Amino acid sequence: MNIWGRHYRTIWPTAERSVQVIDQTRLPFEFVTLELRSLEQVAQAIRTMVVRGAPLIGAAAAYGIALAMQTDASDRALDEALRALQTTRPTAQNLSWALARMRAVVSRAAADARADTAFREAGLICDEDVEQCRCIGIHALPLVRQLAESVARPVNILTHCNAGWLACVDWGTALAPIYMAHDAGIAVHVWVDETRPRNQGAALTAFELAAHAVPHTVIADNLGGLLMQRGQVDLVLVGSDRTTASGEVCNKVGTYLKALAAHDNGVPFYAALPASTIDWSLEHGADIPIEERPASELTHVTGRGPSGAVENVRVVAEGSPVLNLAFDVTPARLVTGLITERGVCAASAAGLQSLYPQRRAAS
Amino acid sequence: MNIWGRHYRTIWPTAERSVQVIDQTRLPFEFVTLELRSLEQVAQAIRTMVVRGAPLIGAAAAYGIALAMQTDASDRALDEALRALQTTRPTAQNLSWALARMRAVVSRAAADARADTAFREAGLICDEDVEQCRCIGIHALPLVRQLAESVARPVNILTHCNAGWLACVDWGTALAPIYMAHDAGIAVHVWVDETRPRNQGAALTAFELAAHAVPHTVIADNLGGLLMQRGQVDLVLVGSDRTTASGEVCNKVGTYLKALAAHDNGVPFYAALPASTIDWSLEHGADIPIEERPASELTHVTGRGPSGAVENVRVVAEGSPVLNLAFDVTPARLVTGLITERGVCAASAAGLQSLYPQRRAAS
Repeated sequence: MNIWGRHYRTIWPTAERSVQVIDQTRLPFEFVTLELRSLEQVAQAIRTMVVRGAPLIGAAAAYGIALAMQTDASDRALDEALRALQTTRPTAQNLSWALARMRAVVSRAAADARADTAFREAGLICDEDVEQCRCIGIHALPLVRQLAESVARPVNILTHCNAGWLACVDWGTALAPIYMAHDAGIAVHVWVDETRPRNQGAALTAFELAAHAVPHTVIADNLGGLLMQRGQVDLVLVGSDRTTASGEVCNKVGTYLKALAAHDNGVPFYAALPASTIDWSLEHGADIPIEERPASELTHVTGRGPSGAVENVRVVAEGSPVLNLAFDVTPARLVTGLITERGVCAASAAGLQSLYPQRRAAS
Repeated sequence: MNIWGRHYRTIWPTAERSVQVIDQTRLPFEFVTLELRSLEQVAQAIRTMVVRGAPLIGAAAAYGIALAMQTDASDRALDEALRALQTTRPTAQNLSWALARMRAVVSRAAADARADTAFREAGLICDEDVEQCRCIGIHALPLVRQLAESVARPVNILTHCNAGWLACVDWGTALAPIYMAHDAGIAVHVWVDETRPRNQGAALTAFELAAHAVPHTVIADNLGGLLMQRGQVDLVLVGSDRTTASGEVCNKVGTYLKALAAHDNGVPFYAALPASTIDWSLEHGADIPIEERPASELTHVTGRGPSGAVENVRVVAEGSPVLNLAFDVTPARLVTGLITERGVCAASAAGLQSLYPQRRAAS
């Protein structure tokens, strides 16, 4: 992705064997990169959502292992690093996936080769993520193209939260086909859900789309239903933080409400995800742990004040308790299809097994 | 409603023949009353949502006519005042209803009696609204009581926007039964939707419920679906800005999404409204004009900064366009029932006619 003419990934290793990331808590008002030098700094960056988005969480965790191995390459240090990173965020499957992969590869290496091995494997995870997102875009592009041919105006695509390049290493999942369609001269317009309480839509997706000159409009999370009733949404495209073996989609809280509205209005609803997001061990979305995040994310809002400074203001009445759960689960019956790096399939066990025949649900 | 031990209505005439209101744009951080002395000030207060909520908009408009008649009681001035107020906000039916009633009563009076007549009629509209809201509460109370008897814990009620006493003259529509249940010793807990973009839930409903010591929790608009999936919502209670003769409910944007989730999870969904909210001339909710409000309501958020001052900060990425439509329409098939001052009925033409046999849809 290009930002002001320069190509960026969301995470990259430095020559000094540290890791550089874009600080996503400062967007859209400040574009700042941050150097992470230790396991603890990576864990903190994941926890506080300096880096966020299921694929990027996995990539960052992989680099967290590499940084840990640089300091102490013992089995105990590896176990501790895996545990420390695993507890940073509970919902995204890519975290467990990346850590399992790092454990398998790093634990096989001799102690003095572990840091190198881990950096190399983290780099592979990043490169593969980029390629998988590119494939997701290619597989989803015909959906957008077909809609463009059937409507005599720009294709209106609604997205929730940020499943763009900022959520991944590059390209994005849900946004990859949007960028490709735009680049291919297909007229698209994106309805960007604000995505309370952390405003990833208003802050990150809007920033991304603007940087790529994709026409878009930010809306309150509440508005999507009316737009669908009015025929102003042709397609809903979202990401996924964890997808069960039966095709249920756990994604940013509020996704389920948009899926209901899409179903009620005959609007196709697709989730785009790399295989690393699929939890083959789970059948039921209700068994996915849903992260509870700090109350302050809902009680307070960060924005740019009249002086230009970024400020944090309280919006909820003082003394009123809040509950801040970060994800919900969309039942497979509401999902038109899943878009993976291997193609598009039905949101079902059979659909997923048609693309991943070697995988089988645990149950 | 008592605020810090003192009884308030949301609007009241003064001895100096002006009108006093609570400035709802300053809540929850400042409780300030504002004196309105002219038609223009009333129109401006409605437009900028100093006063808001369908019943209160009607009551305020009635006083706007009274203030206009004090200055100029001619037919032309009456027509102009009616027109000026009618254009302040397009969606709430109570505005048209109150203005039609004021026109009928005031135009019959002699010019030198029109101001007195108008003030008296506006006072009647307010008194009737209070009584109607009280009756709505009484009719809905058995619903809450039955749920309390069937669950062995507080009844969890989800509400969207503010349909409390701040939206009316006193009591509220959706919140009236909640206050009555609480006062009757029935354990209730209210999930308060934040209600973007103007945050009426986080700012007004939370303030109201806290002032009455009703247990409640503020949530992002996105969360209600998950809570319903988890069985943590027993009842959804909302207000209505306009209800068609066929029982479709136009209410604050996002209501439709909650109705879909309630339907999908078998949660009863009721709209509470006085008859003044019913538009007997309309069959189809799609024909209701949906207000588009300023972009700044979505791009900027008002809250209390660290210094204690109330500030306005930008939250949407600079340069990204926004669309801010304020209402949506919930189809009657998703509405378990309508609660009016005459009782509870099905959300259908037959249901409404069972309570209002003299009324008939225009079509």
